[in-house]
Amino acid sequence: MRFRPAVLALVLLIPFATTTCRSFAQDDQLKPVPKEQLDVIKVLLAQEAAWNNGDLETFTQSYKNSPDILFITTNMVNHGFDGMLEAYRRNYPTRAAMGNLSFSELEAHPLDDKFAVVLGKYHLERSKKDGGNSEGRFSLVLEKTDKGWKIIVDHTTS
Amino acid sequence: MRFRPAVLALVLLIPFATTTCRSFAQDDQLKPVPKEQLDVIKVLLAQEAAWNNGDLETFTQSYKNSPDILFITTNMVNHGFDGMLEAYRRNYPTRAAMGNLSFSELEAHPLDDKFAVVLGKYHLERSKKDGGNSEGRFSLVLEKTDKGWKIIVDHTTS
Repeated sequence: MRFRPAVLALVLLIPFATTTCRSFAQDDQLKPVPKEQLDVIKVLLAQEAAWNNGDLETFTQSYKNSPDILFITTNMVNHGFDGMLEAYRRNYPTRAAMGNLSFSELEAHPLDDKFAVVLGKYHLERSKKDGGNSEGRFSLVLEKTDKGWKIIVDHTTS
Repeated sequence: MRFRPAVLALVLLIPFATTTCRSFAQDDQLKPVPKEQLDVIKVLLAQEAAWNNGDLETFTQSYKNSPDILFITTNMVNHGFDGMLEAYRRNYPTRAAMGNLSFSELEAHPLDDKFAVVLGKYHLERSKKDGGNSEGRFSLVLEKTDKGWKIIVDHTTS
């Protein structure tokens, strides 16, 4: 039952995603969300749920475990899964430092059967002594692997 | 002869790209740059040359002319080629406002035969009265179209 909050959020999010995705007919709000689009959005919602469960390991399982993945921030480019995991562990050493994460303005843009782009905003709610609030925008490239959709490029800036 | 500066820059850039791209054998500096990688880097160098020629129209021809392209900055998401072109024209109304653009730390990462990711930094040299200098980092997704490699996602932040 661990992902119930995510599933609920997904239901609430569908009309929103419908209005923001260019690939939809915007005058038909009742049109079902294409499966690919739903699948990549689910990756993000699972991340949100894992983070807010204090579970960094599950959170990072949304990334492809490969030395080729790219993680871009304002100041640097990180190459590979291992370095990214290490950076997450270093920057968020405690449950309090992780705070409470919420995504908004999510847009899923499948490029073809194998790749998709997801845009969104994040907001991290956190006490001042644990680093304070943080927010910003991100773009992701996801690849459909044999283990499901995985993030291969993450560009996040605050 | 218009693109001579770009061609020269390309030659100088190849060893650099070789050392920064994970898909290369990093211990073999003399290994030729794969064609796909060279082709997407050329798109960036053509952009740099067009910009510094004051030619915004040619610069924007590196983007796919489609309502589905995405342009992400710190503050907003722009959908579609037309809106992007309009924003460029609005933000850079004169040759002086365009200043002198240079790209650095370029990395080309082909995802498959059809898509590639390019990372890099930009620096805009410009007089104070024309807006001053500006710099930042970008990630791009390019698609191999029948008109060559075209940018379909541009995430640029300063």
